[in-house]
Amino acid sequence: MDIRQESLQKHYEWNGKIEVVSRVKVNSSKDLSLAYTPGVAEPCLEINKDYNKSFELTRRNNLVAVVTDGSAILGLGDIGPEAGMPVMEGKCALFKEFADVDAFPICVRTKDVDEFVNTVYLISGSFGGINLEDIAAPRCFEIEKKLKEKCDIPVFHDDQHGTAIIVAAGLLNALKVVKKNVEDVQVVINGAGSAGIAICKHLLNIGFKNVTMCDINGILCEDDDTLKDAHKEIAKVTNRSKKTGNLADAMKNADVFIGVSAPNIVSEEMVKSMANDPIIFSMANPTPEIMPDKAKNAGAAVVGTGRSDFPNQINNVLAFPGIFRGALDCRAKEINEEMKVAASYAIANLISDDELNAEYILPEAFDKRIGKAVAEAVITAAKETGVSQI
Amino acid sequence: MDIRQESLQKHYEWNGKIEVVSRVKVNSSKDLSLAYTPGVAEPCLEINKDYNKSFELTRRNNLVAVVTDGSAILGLGDIGPEAGMPVMEGKCALFKEFADVDAFPICVRTKDVDEFVNTVYLISGSFGGINLEDIAAPRCFEIEKKLKEKCDIPVFHDDQHGTAIIVAAGLLNALKVVKKNVEDVQVVINGAGSAGIAICKHLLNIGFKNVTMCDINGILCEDDDTLKDAHKEIAKVTNRSKKTGNLADAMKNADVFIGVSAPNIVSEEMVKSMANDPIIFSMANPTPEIMPDKAKNAGAAVVGTGRSDFPNQINNVLAFPGIFRGALDCRAKEINEEMKVAASYAIANLISDDELNAEYILPEAFDKRIGKAVAEAVITAAKETGVSQI
Repeated sequence: MDIRQESLQKHYEWNGKIEVVSRVKVNSSKDLSLAYTPGVAEPCLEINKDYNKSFELTRRNNLVAVVTDGSAILGLGDIGPEAGMPVMEGKCALFKEFADVDAFPICVRTKDVDEFVNTVYLISGSFGGINLEDIAAPRCFEIEKKLKEKCDIPVFHDDQHGTAIIVAAGLLNALKVVKKNVEDVQVVINGAGSAGIAICKHLLNIGFKNVTMCDINGILCEDDDTLKDAHKEIAKVTNRSKKTGNLADAMKNADVFIGVSAPNIVSEEMVKSMANDPIIFSMANPTPEIMPDKAKNAGAAVVGTGRSDFPNQINNVLAFPGIFRGALDCRAKEINEEMKVAASYAIANLISDDELNAEYILPEAFDKRIGKAVAEAVITAAKETGVSQI
Repeated sequence: MDIRQESLQKHYEWNGKIEVVSRVKVNSSKDLSLAYTPGVAEPCLEINKDYNKSFELTRRNNLVAVVTDGSAILGLGDIGPEAGMPVMEGKCALFKEFADVDAFPICVRTKDVDEFVNTVYLISGSFGGINLEDIAAPRCFEIEKKLKEKCDIPVFHDDQHGTAIIVAAGLLNALKVVKKNVEDVQVVINGAGSAGIAICKHLLNIGFKNVTMCDINGILCEDDDTLKDAHKEIAKVTNRSKKTGNLADAMKNADVFIGVSAPNIVSEEMVKSMANDPIIFSMANPTPEIMPDKAKNAGAAVVGTGRSDFPNQINNVLAFPGIFRGALDCRAKEINEEMKVAASYAIANLISDDELNAEYILPEAFDKRIGKAVAEAVITAAKETGVSQI
């Protein structure tokens, strides 16, 4: 059976992928008076006296809201809040399975930025963190920015930062394979949506010097008056020489191609035009910008995709569970750039030099070491940058 | 150790009373592609085509939000949203333990009625029902009314209706003990907050004919221009003869006293002034309007309180789990009066005529039959009144 039909059938059987259970047994009057009235008055008053105690006396110490407006669900586009929920529930299941983080799915029935922000802010006292998910650009940028300003708990848009963290981790290892340096390589990113822009910013934070951003109209250049604000901003910092041209122009002599765009838009000729030992991450889903076999034929040294049926899957699940595990464990005020950079290195470093090769630049999703390694790196970075509160 | 100190210590140990777990195992790439991408696209599209499928393909078929603004937490008053969360988590634990309903606690950081309503409405696509909890009167009335109008899932303010349902159940059985009829007895309710008003309305729905409402200023009478709207409305339907006077005046020759008010405000003399075999439900917590031994001394035939250390505890936990179990199972559009009346009778009828006595008018909280009995009665009433959607 087709995987999607099989998934649908499973979803009917599962009857929901998450469940809320009680951590306390209530089998006697005594149990009832401890977990509920009259005993429960005391923890309530304790939090009333000291707000911080809510992170000890209620579940928010381990609880993340996975929030969407349903506007950019997978590659399906705006299918509505309720229709996005199977993805949110799936994400919550992964949070629990991979890092023992309790995650609860929330869909918000508005497309208005301020109304969305206000709604999430108003319920944020119930949670220890907020994972934004599948919200269309450019709304997602403004929502994340405003929520970060308002909330006293970490806010993280996984489609941006989770993807960026894994791409960087993979790229760090791919560069080891081809023996090139972060500072020297020329990187081309195609696709200037939320993921593309976040990848670009994250690579600059990691220390990459030469990054060119393209979208469907070619190289982003600040002189182009039709550009959106987010694109102008990124063009200013990446394309200082004000290069223009299409994707094929951008890829000439580049060392790295990162695609978060559309199927089959990269040809073998374009790969051949790149520098020696090019690295290709073609992550359009389900059909990549160029299929791995074609990229290899054209001389690519390392190829990654978003798919699990090829080597080197660039998979967010390597990052978000451990990131929130770390942020919750040190009660981080926010998830800052240093924590994201630390996460990329932690993931890359899970592969020893002996193991590392062109077909194995990232750990498998089910590698049990990942969540812990990422969490530890995130906590260390949080402490060093003063955002840890424990 | 004092129960409240012991509860506080337990809360530190519990580290939260609820937990979100995964109902799917994710141990392989195949698992991942079924529960998450790419398979999950199919249930998403299915809901996009037919909104009703969200009640089959996501957990909202079994999921209730327990929502507060923290403004009337237990008897503690307005202690703030986060400080109310131990109560909300406790309630969620009881939902799960008593009726296998998944319940998730949400605190909303606003005291503005419309902002609260809008926030809860905007996230209501994530849930199958909304249980409002510990919201101060009169705001709670307006919030419930507006939410019921906006939402397509049941909305239920437990402090009002849960309490009313149990009081009525207890009263039906107490009247059997003293061999009096619903239509004949004179009932006095003291305390015109959300619980008192809901009890009054529910008793009228059950068939009680003579109910007098009192508050701190005595009998509610529509001629009193200082009355709030909710009080005027209830005075109009209950006090047609426009009686005035204090609580002592109201209780003279009454058959039933129901207190949801303040400690020690009913004297033995007041009980003695009632009709023969008076019924006293003194539910102020933790100290009742009159202690059971005093009420008995003064001739009370049946005495109930809110406390677990006396016979006949009037305890909401007998009602809310089964009510939502029933409402979810038949996907009720709302929880209407007929369903609440059915719940009262279902609870009362769990005690057979042989078992029934002055010290045993309500089942124990841990009687495993309750949730099922209430749910079945609620479903039958929902089907008869056309609000069932399954």
